[in-house]
Amino acid sequence: MARNELVGNMLIAQSGGPTAVINQSLVGAVLEAKKRKAIRKIYGSLHGIKGILEEQLVDLGRETKPSLEAVAKTPSSALGSVRKKPTADDCRRIFGVLKKYNVRYFFYIGGNDSAETAHIIHEEARKSKYEFRCFHICKTIDNDLRQNDHTPGFASGAKFVAQAFMGDNLDNRALPGVKINVVMGRHAGFLTAASALARVYPDDGPHLVYLPERPFAMSRFLADVKRVYAKYGRCVVAVSEGISDRNGTPIASLFTKEVDAHGNVQLSGTGALGDLLAAQIREKTGISRVRADTFGYLQRSFPGLVSDVDAREARAVGREAVRFAVGGYASGSVAIQRKPGKSYRVEFKRVPLRSVAKETRHMPATFINKAGNDVTTAFIEYARPLVGPLPKIGRLKGHAVKKRK
Amino acid sequence: MARNELVGNMLIAQSGGPTAVINQSLVGAVLEAKKRKAIRKIYGSLHGIKGILEEQLVDLGRETKPSLEAVAKTPSSALGSVRKKPTADDCRRIFGVLKKYNVRYFFYIGGNDSAETAHIIHEEARKSKYEFRCFHICKTIDNDLRQNDHTPGFASGAKFVAQAFMGDNLDNRALPGVKINVVMGRHAGFLTAASALARVYPDDGPHLVYLPERPFAMSRFLADVKRVYAKYGRCVVAVSEGISDRNGTPIASLFTKEVDAHGNVQLSGTGALGDLLAAQIREKTGISRVRADTFGYLQRSFPGLVSDVDAREARAVGREAVRFAVGGYASGSVAIQRKPGKSYRVEFKRVPLRSVAKETRHMPATFINKAGNDVTTAFIEYARPLVGPLPKIGRLKGHAVKKRK
Repeated sequence: MARNELVGNMLIAQSGGPTAVINQSLVGAVLEAKKRKAIRKIYGSLHGIKGILEEQLVDLGRETKPSLEAVAKTPSSALGSVRKKPTADDCRRIFGVLKKYNVRYFFYIGGNDSAETAHIIHEEARKSKYEFRCFHICKTIDNDLRQNDHTPGFASGAKFVAQAFMGDNLDNRALPGVKINVVMGRHAGFLTAASALARVYPDDGPHLVYLPERPFAMSRFLADVKRVYAKYGRCVVAVSEGISDRNGTPIASLFTKEVDAHGNVQLSGTGALGDLLAAQIREKTGISRVRADTFGYLQRSFPGLVSDVDAREARAVGREAVRFAVGGYASGSVAIQRKPGKSYRVEFKRVPLRSVAKETRHMPATFINKAGNDVTTAFIEYARPLVGPLPKIGRLKGHAVKKRK
Repeated sequence: MARNELVGNMLIAQSGGPTAVINQSLVGAVLEAKKRKAIRKIYGSLHGIKGILEEQLVDLGRETKPSLEAVAKTPSSALGSVRKKPTADDCRRIFGVLKKYNVRYFFYIGGNDSAETAHIIHEEARKSKYEFRCFHICKTIDNDLRQNDHTPGFASGAKFVAQAFMGDNLDNRALPGVKINVVMGRHAGFLTAASALARVYPDDGPHLVYLPERPFAMSRFLADVKRVYAKYGRCVVAVSEGISDRNGTPIASLFTKEVDAHGNVQLSGTGALGDLLAAQIREKTGISRVRADTFGYLQRSFPGLVSDVDAREARAVGREAVRFAVGGYASGSVAIQRKPGKSYRVEFKRVPLRSVAKETRHMPATFINKAGNDVTTAFIEYARPLVGPLPKIGRLKGHAVKKRK
């Protein structure tokens, strides 16, 4: 053990929406911590900071390696999650608990809301002159964390979305009509954009892709659908749950009132947006066969469809967070940054908590086409190595038989 | 070639909702036909009987084996599908086309509606004393064909549903609340019942399963949800799109007016049923976090999640149909029947067209629990060998840490 190494217990927790690989990060951190003498007890808090406040802790040091490895391959937060923004009073109580359990290493796996929570806790620790290490471990299928090329969970969500559109495009080809699929991602379009990876043949859907980064105008949407339908006799549309009008009002927010503790409108867990868009098409274009599906929670925790790159990187960010903390850094978030060059390579960097907290990252302009209804080749090149190989799609040559007289 | 063997061309078509393995049946039939000298040209009709009426045919005999094998592994009807019930006039025109192309072998891949169509066409052929062989090749994710132990397409749909519920149960465990998932199947509960295959641990969801075979009463549903929520602090519910009240009125039909040519109400492609049930729970139980997802078309054509048994059997029914027809049978449907015994084995039987047409099969009473809100062990034992292995689900032992004073 190095001189002046901070010795004490560790606590780790998971927060926000689950992903298919969030447990890889948990297990990555726990297995690394088990190797470190500076870290004594390894506590897991149940349901994020709620478990700290209520002292609902489990001893992760007693979990066996086979059990941890099985958990790593299992989607959704094994420790339970929470959508809770701590108040100033919550933070004081959290420190009471952390001190009581001699926690010197704190790791919080989550999105930008969780980075904000970690930042608040870290500030509180500084104020009370309690020596400890506070790290955020990134995850979110929305892929909307600043400082990151991409975030763990996104690639597996993107793989699900791409495969779902592959199948749905074939379905729509067999029974033509207009098909709308509503995809998660809140105010970032990355996951919806991943639908474009489904394309194999030139006439494959999605034929239109609507992202929250561009204002959504119903009239232009209807004109786009009519144009594609006239060309192909069918139309597959990818729509982000977070599409907003020119005033920034989410289209979905017109139909729901529920918000979480961070003030976020509930965009998922309802089919209202898809049904609204389908009704508009039926009413305004005269096309009769119009269907809408909302992919919903399947996108974020589907077992058996994990991207290999995603699983590997999610494990790595957990491990790296422990290394940075034990190495002496007081706080930070582990960001995934892509190295320049032709082949896909990444590095894991420590960045300040504040730099990933609160604000979200959006699709860069280079990833969106001029008309604002599709992605560019640059996006495909960005996303392809993350998602990895997709199922092969065969098609009949379809040699036409000459009509007999 | 045997004496008196009927020599001529073959025509094959696909109908109704696509499945993940419907092209296995197409390819099974085509590859078998290629070996048979009695069969000359192998025509495929585009979009079912619509392609016959419009003489939109392709020459499947010119497709290469690698191309056919790639198509076999690809979900959704490669020839295109249709939802069209032929009129008497349509049937006369169909015979005009069949005679013109010297079609002596006709194969129609589809559900009970398609068996009915094949039956009508066969009757028309008999009336006009046109010698030909007319076979129905079964498929439907709804698993509702009489004479069959199960139908091609069901097992892959069931695998998707089971994996979706595995992930969603983990999601609901991480962020507790009530989660409703609406599953396809029309008036048969098999696909919804397959959600129960997701259970690994005793407290795993789905905690409640509502099937169209039992009348749905809102008051009992709400009481069930409250009871489960009180016990586990969460509740995952599987609901068939086809649930009906005691008068047989589908709950979903209160929210849609669209019907297809066979008089079937549109139950899929809308989130209305799930949203209605979620609103009822919010309003009547006081539980605040309630979400609903409608799995929609993903269930029937998701690539990369095919059941091996399903793929093999779908191939076999296509092949067997050609063998029966060339062997001399005038008409029939190829049914999958399970052999008695401990290990899973099936046989493929020729049954009369009329015996699978029109009427649907329902979940037997032995597959449904007394309360009408779950399946029985008998159903699990029935479905498990069809679906095959599912992803391993790990769980932390979760050794509780003693609270410090």
